[in-house]
This record gives sequence, structure tokens and C-alpha cells, in this order.
Amino acid sequence: MILEKIAQAIDGRLPFAAGLFATLEAQTKDGEGVTRPAWSEADERAVTLVADTALALDLEIDHDNAGNIYVTLPGLDREAPALLTGSHLDSVPKGGNFDGYAGVVAGLTALAAFRDLGVTPACDIRTVGLRGEESVWYGIAYIGSRLAVGSLDVSEIDRLRRSDTGRTLADHMAELEIDLAALGHATSPYISPDNTKGFLELHIEQGPVLVDRNLPIAVPTVIRGNIRFPYARCFGEYAHSAAVPRLLRRDAALATVELVGALDNMWQEFEASGVPHTVFTVGQLYTDATLHAMTKVPGECAFSLNFGGTTEAFLDEVRERTVALAREIGDRRNVEFQLGECVGSNPTPLDAGLCERLENRAAALGISTHAMATVGHDASIFARAGIPAAMVLVRNQHGSHNAAEAMEMADFGLGVQTLAATLLDLA
Amino acid sequence: MILEKIAQAIDGRLPFAAGLFATLEAQTKDGEGVTRPAWSEADERAVTLVADTALALDLEIDHDNAGNIYVTLPGLDREAPALLTGSHLDSVPKGGNFDGYAGVVAGLTALAAFRDLGVTPACDIRTVGLRGEESVWYGIAYIGSRLAVGSLDVSEIDRLRRSDTGRTLADHMAELEIDLAALGHATSPYISPDNTKGFLELHIEQGPVLVDRNLPIAVPTVIRGNIRFPYARCFGEYAHSAAVPRLLRRDAALATVELVGALDNMWQEFEASGVPHTVFTVGQLYTDATLHAMTKVPGECAFSLNFGGTTEAFLDEVRERTVALAREIGDRRNVEFQLGECVGSNPTPLDAGLCERLENRAAALGISTHAMATVGHDASIFARAGIPAAMVLVRNQHGSHNAAEAMEMADFGLGVQTLAATLLDLA
Repeated sequence: MILEKIAQAIDGRLPFAAGLFATLEAQTKDGEGVTRPAWSEADERAVTLVADTALALDLEIDHDNAGNIYVTLPGLDREAPALLTGSHLDSVPKGGNFDGYAGVVAGLTALAAFRDLGVTPACDIRTVGLRGEESVWYGIAYIGSRLAVGSLDVSEIDRLRRSDTGRTLADHMAELEIDLAALGHATSPYISPDNTKGFLELHIEQGPVLVDRNLPIAVPTVIRGNIRFPYARCFGEYAHSAAVPRLLRRDAALATVELVGALDNMWQEFEASGVPHTVFTVGQLYTDATLHAMTKVPGECAFSLNFGGTTEAFLDEVRERTVALAREIGDRRNVEFQLGECVGSNPTPLDAGLCERLENRAAALGISTHAMATVGHDASIFARAGIPAAMVLVRNQHGSHNAAEAMEMADFGLGVQTLAATLLDLA
Repeated sequence: MILEKIAQAIDGRLPFAAGLFATLEAQTKDGEGVTRPAWSEADERAVTLVADTALALDLEIDHDNAGNIYVTLPGLDREAPALLTGSHLDSVPKGGNFDGYAGVVAGLTALAAFRDLGVTPACDIRTVGLRGEESVWYGIAYIGSRLAVGSLDVSEIDRLRRSDTGRTLADHMAELEIDLAALGHATSPYISPDNTKGFLELHIEQGPVLVDRNLPIAVPTVIRGNIRFPYARCFGEYAHSAAVPRLLRRDAALATVELVGALDNMWQEFEASGVPHTVFTVGQLYTDATLHAMTKVPGECAFSLNFGGTTEAFLDEVRERTVALAREIGDRRNVEFQLGECVGSNPTPLDAGLCERLENRAAALGISTHAMATVGHDASIFARAGIPAAMVLVRNQHGSHNAAEAMEMADFGLGVQTLAATLLDLA
């Protein structure tokens, strides 16, 4: 199949894609943005829309036991491991219409174009609409993909509670007539390396890198891991702001400032020494609003630490140096740091072969790309389950998780061209 | 008068002083501490207690137009400028029993001892019970002493509103039958250099210096001034904590941390270079609780800056360097610092001659003292009005403005001995 024909077929299906975006946006509108809780009436509407679209295109439909939906273009060899694309259907509250859903629309658009071209691939090509990617609903992320590949214990559905309703995931699943008994008794994962030879996820970029570089798409090479101290605290002693000399103070705020400043400097040193793709964020930093005052030395300061990086060596070193700095500064300033629970995730390299294929097809299509790291996505779950995974990021203004997400359809089209060309190449 | 007799007379009156502490504490108890709002029923009880005590000692009583109470031991020359001692009667909400009131009890104890000794000084010796020293009630401090010396425009009483009741100071004064017309029409201040030749204030130390040095009293040489930015803010841009590389971030928290850290270092440099009695406090430091998250780069950070020092040169330099640092860091990090209103007060040297007399009398009594700077007190108002002023600070545990203030009566006795011996020396 010559690439020009694929590109033309995708471009011809952009109005179809725009229609899918507009329809679900209208169905899940919530003031300024869209709200599609995981396993809710709203993401069920998304599943129905995907199913209706598949039926109209004469594609096969199936569901796994967790309620994720799969749309399949049959290949010549139905027994051969399939190629999988897609992303998630749920959104954050009052979020944007593109985070997640763009990857599902991309997969459907590619399959529609293949139908238009009369393509029968060597193996099945499938598009999945996943649920429960956003951690805001049940406290953890990637629930749908983890249930699909069997990396989340099914008993968790009785424990996880939706943040707004307080009801369990099992309860919400039952409301959607998901067969909990079948889910609980499944003996093998629905998606595995045995039946799936690759997963390609298109997703909007959630940062400003592509806008800054004036490029439509990126092929990320790795999903960052992180080391986080979500609930760190420094304890000192409240005191009169003028009556206590420096050496008798136990100032929790200035001690925290010294620690955070030292970690910021450490980050800059890592960057300067060439360690790529590192990030450091102190998203929360606060003296106690019920006790603090301009005229009081603060006796307590709370903060979060959040490091991201693409190698375990970096994250390990960051964790060790953070603990050591907190001890040294705490001793010297006569305060106590309680860094609290340390959580995190390992970096997940994306499949080098698939990344190269994506880069290669984009180049052949005349599309400039950018190699970068990306943030956590369902792709990491498939990768960790042993299924080669890669991604296409599409330029997007204003970040994500807000109503102002602004992906342009022209960029989306280039992303889907790259995705579709690579799927055909792999099939 | 030999010093031993004075010391014995003061010690003999310590039960009397303890009674005055216990009586007012019982009358103004409020859960864990005491609450004596300025110009309230509670501080009126204190005024009544002072008056009853004066009557019992056959001392003269008078009131200025603002409702401050004066107790006078008549001197040989009733026309000669008087010596004044005392402090304030009001407390913060649920505060300690000693902050302010200890200075009034000290003055009454000294006068009682003089009565016991049958002393008639050369000039009148007076003890004042001031009102409205704590800024918590009407937003500004030293209202009583400022009205006494004429340094506060009387029209302010119609503007100032009590923080808890919302009613004006004039309203609360009228409730205590203070003659507002007389207050408004007074043509000369009640207390002036013409009628008062010195003011000596005993007050608990509000910091831990004397505890740390194991000394009962101090004779401070200067009241610190300050430079304050109560409502400083840094504005950046909220962003995804992982998806935005360093150079594209506009992180309000890390920029604020850099500024505060640089100011903390500047403070340490001033100390190391020998500038005495400097303090620096960031009492409030907070990302926005309604918007912040561990996974978001903070777009806003609020903070207060509060520098104290004993020279205007220090405070001027601190202000200039703070503004310059905020500009430099803001430009470099692509955020905007809005430091907001800069407020402050000039340092007020205490009278060197009076300080020397106090030191001299303490030494003669065998009492070790410590030279230090102190925080704002009514003494600064008398000093600025041209009345030589000095202070005696008494060791106290746990700071002030809280129920745990813990001055020991033995230390109080040494403070009052020093005060009384100096008053007699000066008279």
C-alpha cells in the first residue's frame, strides 16, 4: 500500500473523526469541560458510541470482563497475534475532550480508512476503548488496562471507592451490568503477549514541548518513572518573630526552603550533567493556615516532593540524597523532617523497534517528529505485561486535564497517518 | 536609702504582687488562658483592681481622657516632672497573664514598698495601666500610649473597629463611659516631656534568650524596627508536573523558595559580619490550597517577609536587596513577584542614661543582667514622644501571647528590685 493512499484515506476520514469528537463531547458536557467518570453512565455512552461506530463500519465488537470495548478489523490469519491500538475513554472532572479519547478516535479512524481502502491486513488490527485510566476516580490509575492484562488483583474492585460517590468500583461495575463473577473467575488475561503482538497508543501531549518546537507529533522513547513523597512535613517550634534569635529558632519554613532549594539545585546539576528528561515539582508547600502568622516563626511546614526521570539509577540517587539532605538540614536547624511514605513507579522504556517503525513511517510521510520522554499512559501497562508498546504524541495547547485542551485536527490527522501506516507496516 | 532595704521591702510585697496576678487572672480567665480585650469589660476589671489597690495604699488615682489609669505616690515637689512606670492591661485572646500586666503589677509593687518604707520621693512616682497595646483588637498597636502622648489622631477612634465585635473603638469607649468629647477636645497631651521626665517599663521577655543564658533579667538597649511585606505573592503558571520540561516551566513555588532561601542566606551573612540583633521570619508560605496538587507545577505562591533590626541602615539595605532579588529571580524564572505593600517601623533606641542607671542599680543589687534588643513595646511610644524611656525584661518560659507564659515570681522580684532602686535613684 503506498503511503500517499493511506494519507489520503485518513484525511478523508477526518470529518468522521471530528464527528466522533463532537458527539461524545455533547453527550458528556459538564459546564466548561467534559466529565466522564470511569465505569459511569458517561463513559458507558462512550462505549455505546464506539460500538455503534463499529457496527456502521461492519467491524467486529467484543468486550473483556472489565468492560473495556474492542473493535476489530479481521486479518487474513485470525489466529495470529493481533495488533492493538487505542487509549482510554474516561476523563477527569471538567476535563478536556481529547485526553484519552483522541487515541480511541485515532484507532477507529484508522480502521475506517482501512475499510475505505479495502485493506485486509495479515493479522487482526484492533482498537480498544479502555476505562479507568484517570486516578482521580478510584485513587489509582490504569485500572482498565491493568484488568485487561491481568496485572491488577480483581479483588481490588471491592476495595476501591469512587472519590465522589464513595461507592465501590464493584458496585459501579454491577450497575453497568458487568459480569463480576466472570471477571473474578477468569483464569487468563484477556490481553497477553500470546494474542497481542504490539500496542500503539496515540495521545495528546500534555505539555508544551511540541508547541514550543513547532512540531505536530512526537514518538516518545520512554515513560518516565517517579519518586514521590506526597505528604512530607517539617516540624519545628512556633515562636515570636522578633523575640527569638536565629540560633534559638526551630523554623520549619526556612528549613523546608533550604531542603527544597537544595533539591532544586540538585535537579539543575543533573540536567547540566546531561541526564535527560528529569523533572522536579513541589506541587504543595504550605505553613499551617490555622496557626501561621506574619509575626510567628512557623512551627510546621507541609510539602510534597515529586521527581520524574527515565532511569532507575537517577530515581534511586534522588531518593537517597533527599533522605540524607533532610537529615542533615534537620539536625543542623534543630527541626524534624518526616518525609512520610515514599511512593513511585519505575521508568518504562517503550519498544525500540516499534518506536523506530513509527519514526520511519512518519519520515516517509514527510512528517517531522521529536524524540522525548512522556508521562504515564496505559501503554506502560501493556509494556510491563510483555507486549511491545509505543506511542504517538500529538501537539496540544494548554496542557491536559482542563477544558482548554486544544488539539488541532490537522495535527491529529498527521498522527493518525503515522499510526495507520505503522499498523499496516507491522501487519 | 540603702539597697538592701529596698530589696527586702520588694520581697516583702511579693505575696501582694502574687495576689494581684491571681485576682485578675481569675477575673479574666478564658479557658486555658486569659482574654482581656482593649477597652472591654475585662480590662475595665483590671482598671478597677488597680484603682482599688491604689486606694488601699492611700495612693492618688487619675485617668487620662483615653481611659488609661495612673496611680501616683506624691513627691516632695508636686510641680516637678514625674517619673512614670507601668505597662499595659490588655491581653491577646486566650493569652498569658503576664504580658503587659506584669509591668503594672511591678509599678504597684514598687509603690507599695515605698509606702512600706515611708519614702517620700523628690518628685511624683507614677504607675500607669495602659490600654490597647495588643494589635489584635483594633489592627494597630499601642493605642493607649499613643493617645496618652498625643501621637495618634483622636479621629481614629471612629475608624478603628474591634476585630471580634466589628464595632468602633469609639463605641467601645463610650460603653465604658469614657468622655469622648473631652478626648476629642484636649489641646495638649496628657503625658509629655514637660510633666514626665522618664518612663521605665518592666515586661516579660517574649523570647528564650534569658532562659538560654540562665539570667533573671535584661536591660534592653534598643527596640527593633522592622521591614515587612505582609502580602507578597509570586505568579507563574500551573502545569503538568511531568509533561513540562524545566525551561518551559513558570514555577511559582520554586521561584519563591529561591527568593526566600537567598534572603535567609543574606540574613546569615549580616549576622556573620557582626550586625547585631537581626531577625528574619517567613511566617506564612503557601501554595493555593484550592488549586495545588502534588502533580501540578504551582502557578501561585503566597508568602510574608518580616525583617527586624536595630538600625535604619540595615532595614533600608534589606528592603532594597529584597526588591532587587525578586526582580532578578522573577526575570530569570519567568514568574512575577508582587511583593505588595511594604510596611515597617523604625528602630527606637532606648535612653542610654536610663539603661546605664538600670544596669548600675542591678549590679549594685548583685543581679546579673544581659544587654539585648527587644521587640515593640509601649516604651517606644514614650521614647518617640521625647520622654526618656528604658525597660527591664524578666525571664519567662514559652514565649508570650499564649496560656503557657511562665514567669517565676523570684525573677519578677529581682526585676522589681532593679526598677524600684532606679526609680528612687532618679527621684
